[in-house]
Amino acid sequence: MQRHGGNVWLAQQTYGITANELIDFSANINPLGPSPRAMEALERAKAYIRHYPEPQAETLRLKLASLWNLPEDMIIVGNGAAELIYALGRVLRPRRVLLPVPTFSEYAESFAEQERIAIYLKRDNYFSLQPEKLYPLLEPENLLVICNPNNPTGQLINRVELRGLLEQAKEKATWVLLDEAFMDFVQPQQSLLEELSLYPNLIIVRSLTKMYALPGLRLGYLAAAPQIIKKLYKTLPPWRVNVLAQAAGLASLQDQAYFNQTLALVNRQKEFLVNALAAIPGLTPLPAAANFILVECRNSGFTAAAIKDYLAPRGILLRLCHNFAGLDEHYFRVAVRTEGENHKLLQNLQQFLKD
Amino acid sequence: MQRHGGNVWLAQQTYGITANELIDFSANINPLGPSPRAMEALERAKAYIRHYPEPQAETLRLKLASLWNLPEDMIIVGNGAAELIYALGRVLRPRRVLLPVPTFSEYAESFAEQERIAIYLKRDNYFSLQPEKLYPLLEPENLLVICNPNNPTGQLINRVELRGLLEQAKEKATWVLLDEAFMDFVQPQQSLLEELSLYPNLIIVRSLTKMYALPGLRLGYLAAAPQIIKKLYKTLPPWRVNVLAQAAGLASLQDQAYFNQTLALVNRQKEFLVNALAAIPGLTPLPAAANFILVECRNSGFTAAAIKDYLAPRGILLRLCHNFAGLDEHYFRVAVRTEGENHKLLQNLQQFLKD
Repeated sequence: MQRHGGNVWLAQQTYGITANELIDFSANINPLGPSPRAMEALERAKAYIRHYPEPQAETLRLKLASLWNLPEDMIIVGNGAAELIYALGRVLRPRRVLLPVPTFSEYAESFAEQERIAIYLKRDNYFSLQPEKLYPLLEPENLLVICNPNNPTGQLINRVELRGLLEQAKEKATWVLLDEAFMDFVQPQQSLLEELSLYPNLIIVRSLTKMYALPGLRLGYLAAAPQIIKKLYKTLPPWRVNVLAQAAGLASLQDQAYFNQTLALVNRQKEFLVNALAAIPGLTPLPAAANFILVECRNSGFTAAAIKDYLAPRGILLRLCHNFAGLDEHYFRVAVRTEGENHKLLQNLQQFLKD
Repeated sequence: MQRHGGNVWLAQQTYGITANELIDFSANINPLGPSPRAMEALERAKAYIRHYPEPQAETLRLKLASLWNLPEDMIIVGNGAAELIYALGRVLRPRRVLLPVPTFSEYAESFAEQERIAIYLKRDNYFSLQPEKLYPLLEPENLLVICNPNNPTGQLINRVELRGLLEQAKEKATWVLLDEAFMDFVQPQQSLLEELSLYPNLIIVRSLTKMYALPGLRLGYLAAAPQIIKKLYKTLPPWRVNVLAQAAGLASLQDQAYFNQTLALVNRQKEFLVNALAAIPGLTPLPAAANFILVECRNSGFTAAAIKDYLAPRGILLRLCHNFAGLDEHYFRVAVRTEGENHKLLQNLQQFLKD
């Protein structure tokens, strides 16, 4: 079984449609593709693949530190955020990992060696996290993992509520891993990166591959107290961020026009898509803070798998959600894509559910 | 201080010479640069960086398995060999790590959490490893690390001697990590990859970045018993090998003409360079089985650092060897490069040592 969405290579084999002809709603990636400036940087950097990368992606790290107003010893760059999350488990060795679910399933894999406690969020309030309900669970040497906005539910905890939770966690000596992989899509941004020094028990991880459409290059970073960063360096190999990811990442961060254009597109199309999905009998899209939408199809009379099996041979990929703890076979997730692609999704959904 | 050679980025900053204008003798990379077929594949794969890579580089893994006649569950692909060596320490948790030195300094970093025993090889016989001398040291749950041919000494242990050592290690329940990063440059090849199933305690790691000049993309693999591979998958994140490394790696493996051309060039130029270095008063090149040469400069009256400081502003980078356990400030390492580049190195060395 597939653990994640976005496996266009498998879909390509299964359905005989090439990866770039597929419309991939199953991975939550910027529908515009990479920034033109990133592609130019990639073009220039090609000549340098015969050299080792900067061992610790120093230039990019300095850029990120200045962007977020953080000392450079509080940031580490990784071969995707996943590498850094895996390494964090080895470095903190938490006694227990608290996982409000449904959430990104890779956390459970990353912390496979730890005792993990799933905290089931409720469908009633769209699986939104109520921070004060977590307070009694916080214990020393525990690690609470919060994805904000949360994948796959699309729910956002605002900064004010989060600060309260972080204060409680600090008092109880609980670490908090805050995954802001999709925060770039939220407006106004609710990132806590610039408040990091207030919370020595807070670790923030970010990805550059969602907003900047670079998942194939791998690029993420983590910000935390210097003593945590130092331990991460010891457990991670040098040269882990390839030359092209470093170049494309740097160029992407400088392309404000592309960033703004993405936000405008995603916000407009998200509103359109949520409304249009809600208008299809049997489908219930949940409120969506990021660039993807969780859809319940219980009342359609079909499982998500049946819907996927209709769409996939037509070149449209969905993310089934039955393997997220706390969800079942009546949920799927779609990324917000371009107008034409979203129309194609809607037409095919209507066609299938009408048949 | 720099832990490794090949940091052209730092040299670029220090000497104001761009990375591709520098002649980098400090990293042991194919002087022809990447294969033309790899560059074509990279060009085509650029369009796919908006997609996640194959999670475990499945296509490349199958190709490697068929290349080495190994079952696919005995191979894992990594973001450079370094990632896999670091992960191996976590998976095996050896009681002691036996490190014949001088050798690649990253092993000591990879096994930082283990007790490490340095076994000092002797200058008398060019630091070559005499396997039977290791026999009394082999103990259960120990890991013996052998780089073959060895970096930075350039010494090769032939297959017959190695088989004897592996039999002994098997009897004593000692793991052996055999790093064949530079084996592609040895003729005839002395790889033990195809004999792997005879030794359940043997782990072989290979790099695709030396022979195929792709260090900037990161690409390595490890072959071992299925139960070790399985544990490695658990400790490593998915998607760790980027789309471009996978594409360039696959194309490189299919470019036999480039492989042959490289071997012909490196062998011819190595012979020339060793002889020419030996003819410079005060320099003693050691016999070299791979694509690099360890040079002792004790009798020149200069330290390696003094020589480096003369060459670097002239755009020529050497690898100082004082930070290899068992070497000192009177050794440097040079990669074998193209005829013109090697001449430039020799002219400058002659110039400096004559002055």
